[in-house]
Amino acid sequence: MYKLIEQDGQARCGEFATVHGTIRTPVFMAVGTAAAIKGAVSSIDLKAIGTQVELSNTYHLHVRPGDKVIKQLGGLHKFMVWDRPILTDSGGFQVFSLSGLRKIKEEGVYFNSHIDGRKIFMGPEESMQIQSNLASTIAMAFDECPPHSATREYIKASVDRTTRWLIRCRDEMKRLNSLEDTINKNQMLFAINQGGTFSDIRIEHARRISDMDLDGYAIGGLAIGESHEDMYRVLEDTVPHLPKNKPVYLMGVGTPANILEAVDRGVDFFDCVYPSRNGRHGHAYTASGRMNLMNAKYELDDRPVEEGCLCPACTTYSRAYIRHLLKAKEMLGMRLLVLHNLYFYNHLMEEIREAIIRKDYKEFKRKKLEGMMRSDE
Amino acid sequence: MYKLIEQDGQARCGEFATVHGTIRTPVFMAVGTAAAIKGAVSSIDLKAIGTQVELSNTYHLHVRPGDKVIKQLGGLHKFMVWDRPILTDSGGFQVFSLSGLRKIKEEGVYFNSHIDGRKIFMGPEESMQIQSNLASTIAMAFDECPPHSATREYIKASVDRTTRWLIRCRDEMKRLNSLEDTINKNQMLFAINQGGTFSDIRIEHARRISDMDLDGYAIGGLAIGESHEDMYRVLEDTVPHLPKNKPVYLMGVGTPANILEAVDRGVDFFDCVYPSRNGRHGHAYTASGRMNLMNAKYELDDRPVEEGCLCPACTTYSRAYIRHLLKAKEMLGMRLLVLHNLYFYNHLMEEIREAIIRKDYKEFKRKKLEGMMRSDE
Repeated sequence: MYKLIEQDGQARCGEFATVHGTIRTPVFMAVGTAAAIKGAVSSIDLKAIGTQVELSNTYHLHVRPGDKVIKQLGGLHKFMVWDRPILTDSGGFQVFSLSGLRKIKEEGVYFNSHIDGRKIFMGPEESMQIQSNLASTIAMAFDECPPHSATREYIKASVDRTTRWLIRCRDEMKRLNSLEDTINKNQMLFAINQGGTFSDIRIEHARRISDMDLDGYAIGGLAIGESHEDMYRVLEDTVPHLPKNKPVYLMGVGTPANILEAVDRGVDFFDCVYPSRNGRHGHAYTASGRMNLMNAKYELDDRPVEEGCLCPACTTYSRAYIRHLLKAKEMLGMRLLVLHNLYFYNHLMEEIREAIIRKDYKEFKRKKLEGMMRSDE
Repeated sequence: MYKLIEQDGQARCGEFATVHGTIRTPVFMAVGTAAAIKGAVSSIDLKAIGTQVELSNTYHLHVRPGDKVIKQLGGLHKFMVWDRPILTDSGGFQVFSLSGLRKIKEEGVYFNSHIDGRKIFMGPEESMQIQSNLASTIAMAFDECPPHSATREYIKASVDRTTRWLIRCRDEMKRLNSLEDTINKNQMLFAINQGGTFSDIRIEHARRISDMDLDGYAIGGLAIGESHEDMYRVLEDTVPHLPKNKPVYLMGVGTPANILEAVDRGVDFFDCVYPSRNGRHGHAYTASGRMNLMNAKYELDDRPVEEGCLCPACTTYSRAYIRHLLKAKEMLGMRLLVLHNLYFYNHLMEEIREAIIRKDYKEFKRKKLEGMMRSDE
């Protein structure tokens, strides 16, 4: 249940109540693809750095260790020892991006596992069943995410099919939530808006799925190659056509600047691999932009990555030490930067919520974006 | 300064006072080759699992980031943020095992860096200077560690040179400790006994170096290919000829069984890469022997790695989750097992000290060894 706390322009601060606790929005979800955050970060670490929601990938967990294994072990929360909300994606995006050969039919998608090549079929019902086995807090609808290069005609037909699939997802989720041996009988379902960069298709689709009264609404198929200007335009055109009393989730986005802009256009939920992936590659996010800790100038720098930062890396270790760890290929260097980056994103969202409550979002955003221009890269 | 607390047979429980705090012995030192424990374990983690002494490698830190860089940053303690004792090896072992081309002369060893191939010279004075720059608590003497295949004649000549090198190490350390800009002016020096598996050479060498009144005595050149029986025999023959009022350190050893046997022969200090290396490869040490967490039988096992264990892994996560992490190549799986294994070793040493104080060491050892036979491997 979404409750608006304050609105400043289109930027919203709210609370979203779930069976696993209330999420303060705007929120950034930490991506734990295979039920773990890459960079040796545990669920205990996630709590320590203020993470509210963990996101896991349905496709990855279906192929390994298997959603039935996780169900037998009591569901994803018990498996990874995390008692706050978990959002699972539908598996659709991974099916379309990771697997090689695939055939899309009205019933669903036939594809080969990226691990052992075995044939898998996934349709709306299968995706809901897997997510029900995982027992996440929020399940995502099974959709097609067409490539950025797709034609208008292809996208139109694809969006229509995604709408038909959404009806099947909703019906299947309702059925699964009523079964006796379902772990989370209150599993929520978020719809996904598609339409590429065609605002008219996006708007029409947004209207159709809004009528279905789902628990939340995601905007998919962005951050896959279009320009930032196109992304912001699509948000400006589409978000007003989604229900006001439901959270809006922009999938797979993005940089701190993307998030600041998207919040300004009404988005509440975010997820992105950037903080963990860039941390593993030696990059740190700071209020002054991105830092490359491999840079020679940090060799003798005994300051923390970001002065004043209260993350587990900055409160103890120096730039010089972290640089050395990265050069020596010590996993600890990656872990420290991933912890810093995830803390940075969580802290940014906290500042965003405070700015909205203060009704100072535009000015806050301007200053933040200005500060981030001072990158060392 | 070594203080004997209790002796049970040859097994000793004592206290070794250093400028960085008192070490309770027998002790296991965690190996942090490049100023970090492999497996994304930080100095904060080391404290949490009860580690008393950290060991770093002189050779590795000399080539990267450079001992002069670490000196400029205030020494190894400040660099890795660790305020308990640190022991640095002399670099000799790595010079002999890692570098390809090398020439051993009376003045020292000429060799090529294993990182960029550049020519390096290291002799007793250079090793002391590097360790003084690192400012460890305990420096190790620069010695030659001949291969297990070396002839008696070679070992005899090598040991004589190692004795001459020890005199130079002692003199250089004395000089360095008196310099104004030396970080740790109380740096200790441990001698290293060599002699392969030839007890008479070992004993003669032990007597000669004992006369030099150093801070501690190590037994080097074991655990490099000889049988466990040979190792134990050499210990039985050699340890009685080392000073009673100094700690005895068996370098690079070993398995829990090796440690139990060596303590029974008078050894006080140990170090070994097994707990971290085996953890990274999916193996856990337990009171019932080694477990391979990749084993299919753990797929649905929701028990901790070792029931009753108070390590950060066992108090939270299941065998099934750790197995999944290892299979999915998630760094977190390695980190959790390394934390468990290091905790296991630290806890074993604690139990060993308690058994000696109870004067129950033989019986304790027998039961421990019996329990460890129930390995799943």
